[in-house]
Amino acid sequence: MAVITLTTDFGTADGFVGAMKGVILGIAPGAALVDLSHEVPPQDVLAGALLLEAACPHFPDETIHLAVVDPGVGGRRAAIAVRTPRALYVGPDNGLLTLILDRDPPRNMVRLTNPAFHRHPVSATFHGRDVFAPVAAHLAAGAAFEELGEPHPSLVRLEVPRPAFADSTADAHVLHVDRFGNLVLDVTREAFDAWAPGAGAFVTIRAGGAQTHGIRRTYSDVAAGALAAYWGSGGRLELAVRNGSAAAALGLRTGDRVQIAVEPRRPPDA
Amino acid sequence: MAVITLTTDFGTADGFVGAMKGVILGIAPGAALVDLSHEVPPQDVLAGALLLEAACPHFPDETIHLAVVDPGVGGRRAAIAVRTPRALYVGPDNGLLTLILDRDPPRNMVRLTNPAFHRHPVSATFHGRDVFAPVAAHLAAGAAFEELGEPHPSLVRLEVPRPAFADSTADAHVLHVDRFGNLVLDVTREAFDAWAPGAGAFVTIRAGGAQTHGIRRTYSDVAAGALAAYWGSGGRLELAVRNGSAAAALGLRTGDRVQIAVEPRRPPDA
Amino acid sequence: MAVITLTTDFGTADGFVGAMKGVILGIAPGAALVDLSHEVPPQDVLAGALLLEAACPHFPDETIHLAVVDPGVGGRRAAIAVRTPRALYVGPDNGLLTLILDRDPPRNMVRLTNPAFHRHPVSATFHGRDVFAPVAAHLAAGAAFEELGEPHPSLVRLEVPRPAFADSTADAHVLHVDRFGNLVLDVTREAFDAWAPGAGAFVTIRAGGAQTHGIRRTYSDVAAGALAAYWGSGGRLELAVRNGSAAAALGLRTGDRVQIAVEPRRPPDA
Repeated sequence: MAVITLTTDFGTADGFVGAMKGVILGIAPGAALVDLSHEVPPQDVLAGALLLEAACPHFPDETIHLAVVDPGVGGRRAAIAVRTPRALYVGPDNGLLTLILDRDPPRNMVRLTNPAFHRHPVSATFHGRDVFAPVAAHLAAGAAFEELGEPHPSLVRLEVPRPAFADSTADAHVLHVDRFGNLVLDVTREAFDAWAPGAGAFVTIRAGGAQTHGIRRTYSDVAAGALAAYWGSGGRLELAVRNGSAAAALGLRTGDRVQIAVEPRRPPDA
Repeated sequence: MAVITLTTDFGTADGFVGAMKGVILGIAPGAALVDLSHEVPPQDVLAGALLLEAACPHFPDETIHLAVVDPGVGGRRAAIAVRTPRALYVGPDNGLLTLILDRDPPRNMVRLTNPAFHRHPVSATFHGRDVFAPVAAHLAAGAAFEELGEPHPSLVRLEVPRPAFADSTADAHVLHVDRFGNLVLDVTREAFDAWAPGAGAFVTIRAGGAQTHGIRRTYSDVAAGALAAYWGSGGRLELAVRNGSAAAALGLRTGDRVQIAVEPRRPPDA
Repeated sequence: MAVITLTTDFGTADGFVGAMKGVILGIAPGAALVDLSHEVPPQDVLAGALLLEAACPHFPDETIHLAVVDPGVGGRRAAIAVRTPRALYVGPDNGLLTLILDRDPPRNMVRLTNPAFHRHPVSATFHGRDVFAPVAAHLAAGAAFEELGEPHPSLVRLEVPRPAFADSTADAHVLHVDRFGNLVLDVTREAFDAWAPGAGAFVTIRAGGAQTHGIRRTYSDVAAGALAAYWGSGGRLELAVRNGSAAAALGLRTGDRVQIAVEPRRPPDA
């Protein structure tokens, strides 16, 4: 039984998601539908890209990931399907797949130009229902990848914030604020280790007028209400207030700057 | 494997939806549960009716659609099941099924008066768990439709706003505001074509102090921030602000008036 | 096919829930995933406990209930699995399971200390993905309960508000405000009947400056806009405003006090 995951910014107060599910089950009746999220903030491609990066790698091989955060629907952006050694991805070519495909690089890519795999008439404003859902379902039902359309030569890349690393300081940014108000920074463990290997205990992190010393194992290692930095479950540096919201406490949101400084000696409370 | 879709206004912060799913799986262990929505605004029967209309037609034949937006639970409204040539519907007889049954007309209707198909004791405030869910599950498990209760002669109809068409103008209304702030009007393509056939490029639409000329293919055909009218994916006229919220930009909400005028000649920018 | 229910406070705007689902399907590909809720308010263990109590008893035998509301993740709280005659529960030992296990008492309990059943490396901040999800999936795939870890002798109990019963009055509390603004009180039918058997029609309930007489069958038994008390679908006394929100009308929220008085004679309008 094929697994199809669904990720959209459609919410569920409207019928968009239901329509997509109906179209899929009409074509691939035995498919297992797995909701990843319909609560990506409207038209927030970066948030959708981060969500796919966090969730998709954990699914079994051959899973079909259907993702629609699509501010350009009906315009010139391409509709694509991507095959990797591990999985299949179906969605708009607008950067939504950038982060997951950096981890799970494409083997084949097609533009979804073959109308035989679409629902007709194709609405100019709802390719989720009329292009992406039927294509994902046809893949689940055994359609040949190459027949979905013409080869797609290259992907639109999402502009993702990156830290500016200097000698002993780095200007990082808030990449995402999660449900708990934790601040996910644009600093990966790989980038940090290349910049300041072994310096986790020697950093001071300043954000929104507050600061914390040292990178901890988890926010549970500090007192309630205190700020902590730690390597998050997605491999990026995060800031949290234990039993609170770092976003609210520091007044920070996506895009805001966070400064990291490597101290000459280990700060006293790290 | 029978498919049962679920549509409610219960949200998921409480245990209502989980209880319904448990009851269903206790009776029909192999049923495939498909969430359409639990985020219908509380007690908003029209929003639920629009959602069912948008989603249900896309499901395979014999799908069982369980829908509970039920402000009159425990009072005198009937609990019903409806069989159409395509599907089965289970829910309160309060207008929630009006729009979908206009598209998929009933063949048989019963009141759910046979207690053998209910969970006992039946709570006076939660027929979703004790009447509708077990009935849907029994249908999935093969129960005979006619045994669910006595024949139900006629349906309560939902009052749905309709436009007032005059010679060259129409007073339409906002029927629904979707997740993106797009305004779905109460003007179907059929009604428009009967009123002003071929006049799509000749209309001016005025709403909330703004106006737009001509009916476009999609909001992607106008500049970012501009207002556009187009035929939405559900077959109704919609107003959107590209990359924005028409509801916020125009200050409009459900029920508000929108004026449509057929111009003697094609407006310059349509 | 094993059924695994999921209950978390993770919301779905982030990738947490998707990651858990992927991990489960990677280990137990045929498992049926059933979302109970991901909208438990962040870190609100009581709300999660009430949700499990409302939903889990309705599921078929042998269902695996995976529940993660886990403010102490990475700290000293134990991760546990509990087997009862009816079901299996997997989650943190922080009181989240108190209410459901009061109804469905444990037969065996283990601490999840066997790393063979975890995903590695185990993140200090996301045991949902790395400990609880894989354990639930291994149980679905047939793992022996006893191999998950060492026996767990006793559970952390959640402090749940309880009414103070005096001779003819009781000080009760709002335990939960549901989606519709109904106030669920900490008064169970059993406790009420032990205190004032048969007195349902003789009580006056005072809350937030308003009052209502008698316990009704349902809010549909009073006029629109009126306050009603009734036995809720979960077996607790509830206050509702028909076609409105009692929480908004009375200005009450979780923890607030509600007074119940048994009157010497039946109040006139009860």
